Amino acid sequence: MIYFDNAASTRLDDEVLKVMTPYFTQNYGNSQSQHAKGREAAGALIAARDKMASLINCNSDELYFVSGGTEAGNTAIKGACSHYKTGSIVLSAIEHPAMLESARDMQKHGFELILVYPDENGVISPESVEKALRSDTIFCGVMAANNETGVVQPVEQIGKICRERGVFFYIDCVQTAGTRKIDASICDGLGISSHKFYGPKGVGALYLRKGSKVDRLISGGMQESGFRGGTVNIAGIVGMVEAYSRACACREEHNIKLKKLRDALVSGVLSNIDCAKINGGGDILSSHANISFEGCDGERILFLLDLKGICVSTGAACSAGVVYSSHVLQAMGLSPSRVKSSIRFSFGNYNTMQEVETTISALCEIIKKIQVGV
Amino acid sequence: MIYFDNAASTRLDDEVLKVMTPYFTQNYGNSQSQHAKGREAAGALIAARDKMASLINCNSDELYFVSGGTEAGNTAIKGACSHYKTGSIVLSAIEHPAMLESARDMQKHGFELILVYPDENGVISPESVEKALRSDTIFCGVMAANNETGVVQPVEQIGKICRERGVFFYIDCVQTAGTRKIDASICDGLGISSHKFYGPKGVGALYLRKGSKVDRLISGGMQESGFRGGTVNIAGIVGMVEAYSRACACREEHNIKLKKLRDALVSGVLSNIDCAKINGGGDILSSHANISFEGCDGERILFLLDLKGICVSTGAACSAGVVYSSHVLQAMGLSPSRVKSSIRFSFGNYNTMQEVETTISALCEIIKKIQVGV
Repeated sequence: MIYFDNAASTRLDDEVLKVMTPYFTQNYGNSQSQHAKGREAAGALIAARDKMASLINCNSDELYFVSGGTEAGNTAIKGACSHYKTGSIVLSAIEHPAMLESARDMQKHGFELILVYPDENGVISPESVEKALRSDTIFCGVMAANNETGVVQPVEQIGKICRERGVFFYIDCVQTAGTRKIDASICDGLGISSHKFYGPKGVGALYLRKGSKVDRLISGGMQESGFRGGTVNIAGIVGMVEAYSRACACREEHNIKLKKLRDALVSGVLSNIDCAKINGGGDILSSHANISFEGCDGERILFLLDLKGICVSTGAACSAGVVYSSHVLQAMGLSPSRVKSSIRFSFGNYNTMQEVETTISALCEIIKKIQVGV
Repeated sequence: MIYFDNAASTRLDDEVLKVMTPYFTQNYGNSQSQHAKGREAAGALIAARDKMASLINCNSDELYFVSGGTEAGNTAIKGACSHYKTGSIVLSAIEHPAMLESARDMQKHGFELILVYPDENGVISPESVEKALRSDTIFCGVMAANNETGVVQPVEQIGKICRERGVFFYIDCVQTAGTRKIDASICDGLGISSHKFYGPKGVGALYLRKGSKVDRLISGGMQESGFRGGTVNIAGIVGMVEAYSRACACREEHNIKLKKLRDALVSGVLSNIDCAKINGGGDILSSHANISFEGCDGERILFLLDLKGICVSTGAACSAGVVYSSHVLQAMGLSPSRVKSSIRFSFGNYNTMQEVETTISALCEIIKKIQVGV
């Protein structure tokens, strides 16, 4: 099995699992409980929050543990709407469905959604965001890098514009966490998902700058300073922070490895397959390669690779299962035939150069097969 | 260490952890992915949903996996409010903060909250609910059993009244899952939390009857039929369903064991400690004993028991960490001194009769100490 779908989800690191395990069957207390078992959990929670906050450059009381990046994004958008009760939301047209669908839900409650389109490289320009902001804009969201193309966005400049205009700026960092440094000081809110950097699924983090006008989404007890109810998922949180800490410690080394694999795949594909074209340009995450094979159906390529035990994706996993039509590649202005023929390869810690070579050969064979109509 | 706080959280079952583990480091695919790794996860998800649905007597497409009972309750209340845009919410005054705080959040958006008070036994009568329902009531919520007292509520009768009146009826089953049978057919929605029945934290389930007028709370990809976005927490879900399945299989045996432990504690305490009084009456979960020690401060008892390595609770863990004043016991009309002196003992699979005896002795000593003012 060759797994080139690390952007969809990663294998949990064995060392991370080791750190999590005691919180299942030994330190199983509820972190809100006022006794020894509760204090074990509460202590681990405090340590995890402090560690995570220092790694993303925010204060511990600005960091909330949630069930994942999707909940983080929903909380930010819907929480801002709940607070302001009226206004417009500015999002890039290439945001993850977690952001776009949240905004669409808010449209039903009278909020206006303004989309900002990328250039043909998949880049959202700060100027285009600036033009979209209005006096009634209560929220602006641009992802740190796109999940389908890996194209890195100029979020620092966009953050400056939003700050000047007094608009809350949120960065969806789900796809960059693990390969790019996250710096909370350039925005008002950001979200990450643990399972993208070899941590467990079902846990994530939300940063909200102190004083943010964002209401809570999930209310209940006094967990997370009363901002996010529900018994705290200690094993998950401890696992996420361990995984993130490891990702930060070996980020450069990890990027060098991923870039070698990615570049080898890209150059192998481009030099052997005539119809292949890279989607996205400029600064692209070392983990991503989005390639179109014009004239070939992406779903068919995916299916034939799968038969050979090679796991890839057509666009984001979260939109799979429905007829594929990437809103990201469409927003970049790519032709329908190019959009329909695109495949995302995403690389991770456990991949090898041998796997890249096997995949290039498999692709050559598959594309030829499709082209001759077998 | 003696752990009598199983209502706050339970130790994960070793057998459940065994079932979960492959989903961390082997079958780590994203259940939305269209390849072998994705299908492993998707297959496990389908099996888990079918199993869980059959255990609570609903259809698979009426069951949503969420991050816990708190998210389930928030989704039901806030989702109904989002759909109807106006109206009143009827809740028992002894609901968990997940429900009460959700409703209070909705009050800020113009919804009215009507509370129904219990009798002195802690029971919400169907008649009192019937009186509270109005023509504009969009949601009624009564828990299956109270988390602080363990008092079981007549939810089947209340469900009938709501159905006659065409009001959506939600049952918070968080505290009964594992010890009482859950039957989705008597209500329109219900929620459970995995960590209350020896499953992992951070995962729960929400049943919503087909056709329910409830909007989604967390939007994103097409997970959970588009009703709940976010990469599916497969390990957590598989663990929860395994734990619930085990709980159902040994429910009677488990209840016999818990009842023996609970009854031994109660009779030992009542026969040895003059100021002790049981809070709540009628049908009480075998896992619960809520006892007041009038004249003694509950926080002090908890602290002194903790020093002896005995973990108990004053009220719900989710409200702990703030100055204690049980809204549940207050709603039952108990005197402030009785409320302030209450302790919840909650029993679980791993407790023994020896632990009960040790706790009775410890309590006798502690109460005497407090009474003589040492």
